[in-house]
Amino acid sequence: MLQNEVLLCFAFYSTVLIVKMFVVAIITGQVRLRKKAFANPEDALRNGGLQFCRQDPAVERCRRAHRNDMENIFPFLFLGAIYSLLDPSPAVARMHFLIFCLGRIVHTVAYLLQLRAPTRSLAYSLAQLPCFSMALQILLATTPYCARGWSRQQQHTVELPYRGEGRRKVLLSLCPEDNTRVPPGPKEETRMDRE
Amino acid sequence: MLQNEVLLCFAFYSTVLIVKMFVVAIITGQVRLRKKAFANPEDALRNGGLQFCRQDPAVERCRRAHRNDMENIFPFLFLGAIYSLLDPSPAVARMHFLIFCLGRIVHTVAYLLQLRAPTRSLAYSLAQLPCFSMALQILLATTPYCARGWSRQQQHTVELPYRGEGRRKVLLSLCPEDNTRVPPGPKEETRMDRE
Amino acid sequence: MLQNEVLLCFAFYSTVLIVKMFVVAIITGQVRLRKKAFANPEDALRNGGLQFCRQDPAVERCRRAHRNDMENIFPFLFLGAIYSLLDPSPAVARMHFLIFCLGRIVHTVAYLLQLRAPTRSLAYSLAQLPCFSMALQILLATTPYCARGWSRQQQHTVELPYRGEGRRKVLLSLCPEDNTRVPPGPKEETRMDRE
Repeated sequence: MLQNEVLLCFAFYSTVLIVKMFVVAIITGQVRLRKKAFANPEDALRNGGLQFCRQDPAVERCRRAHRNDMENIFPFLFLGAIYSLLDPSPAVARMHFLIFCLGRIVHTVAYLLQLRAPTRSLAYSLAQLPCFSMALQILLATTPYCARGWSRQQQHTVELPYRGEGRRKVLLSLCPEDNTRVPPGPKEETRMDRE
Repeated sequence: MLQNEVLLCFAFYSTVLIVKMFVVAIITGQVRLRKKAFANPEDALRNGGLQFCRQDPAVERCRRAHRNDMENIFPFLFLGAIYSLLDPSPAVARMHFLIFCLGRIVHTVAYLLQLRAPTRSLAYSLAQLPCFSMALQILLATTPYCARGWSRQQQHTVELPYRGEGRRKVLLSLCPEDNTRVPPGPKEETRMDRE
Repeated sequence: MLQNEVLLCFAFYSTVLIVKMFVVAIITGQVRLRKKAFANPEDALRNGGLQFCRQDPAVERCRRAHRNDMENIFPFLFLGAIYSLLDPSPAVARMHFLIFCLGRIVHTVAYLLQLRAPTRSLAYSLAQLPCFSMALQILLATTPYCARGWSRQQQHTVELPYRGEGRRKVLLSLCPEDNTRVPPGPKEETRMDRE
């Protein structure tokens, strides 16, 4: 891992965003205490009485911001990790991570401070762009291997002349690029039967 | 990564499911606009007035589908990645990923289109099968190493005769299979003290 | 992966926690059936009638426990994986994972059994400690590489005397530790022009 600069960069931005989510969780707890609005009766009992087991608009706002983070940052953690392993250009990869990170930070600030309407949506849309880009690149990179995997199950064995002396049974893959990048699996043995 | 065919296949199906989740998020936004039901006053103000800051059954349905995805697809992203690294049979692994992927797509369709009752539950249960299978295989594969790690802390040093000339201090592990698959850690040094 | 003992240990504890989340999901379903409180009309219709499409405090409690798990266990899955790749001390790493795992299990038990007030919060806080520790260690380990990446774009080429006979153009990085741990990227070539 210490040799993959893109992965290190991805780990940095991802961890910044996870810490940002922890901060939202801490803010939610503080708002609950300040507004005296608890989700559980046992918490309300400890903080003044059962009447404080109630909903509050400020608390719900924090929870919506946190949920939106889960819906978007968690997929980024996965997409970014796979994308980093696909050997992308470091500069382009860094740009993907930075745009997402900035977009999500602006999104949270706009959510919690209740900024005017299109700010939050714009930050959300901006942050989705690198996610869609990475998802597309992953699909483009993995589809051939995945499709090849299925077609391998339709391989046929053919007999070919071998050095003029005999015949050799070989597995005939329907995918000509079969041995280029993935090492042969355990089923791809070639058997030689001299007559 | 490009050498691990199972991991490539897993990356493909996982990314398909993440894109599916992004589609659910986009549908939620469209339903919010069409039904005029916004979660935040600032959004409602921009789209007709504060009276549209309200809940709507169709929006809540989308949100439940999205939440169920988070509860099930995110764990799959982790389990599948670890499982792929355990060197499983490519055909079996592909079957795990495909069943989960199809189950979750049917689940979302059944949720959003409000299909008759057991459809969604059946798709959910079907998709859980490969998750439980992968979790079980990971636990079976990792438990010995994890248990060994703890017992290593109870190692003892013993002195054994060395080539008839002296004695050598060796760390005696309580786990006989200690050196088979994990390289010796920094604490497992052997010291030789010739007398 | 089979060579990284810390990663195996992390995979074990993570999978235990994911299975724990699956158990919470199963409990939620059972409570829904027992309390006859369904989220969707199609489920209520199959289980007695539309009047059972309703909320229930016991069901909501399960859902809050599950949501809190998502907010905290999913980040752990990421932080722990990156942290494991940073080559930490196996004993210290194991302690991080164990504390988090125990904290989250106690949190769920305290939530579902409605234990007295500070129990759940204490378990939550205890489980956050290893998360913050891992996040901090990841940031400390990745910040220099990430910062270096940006500064690399400001490299300059300088000419230096070469073996008394000529001059050699070298890329001058603004970061002196440039070549210590990351292999040179495609842009870091050195050209030699003898005069």
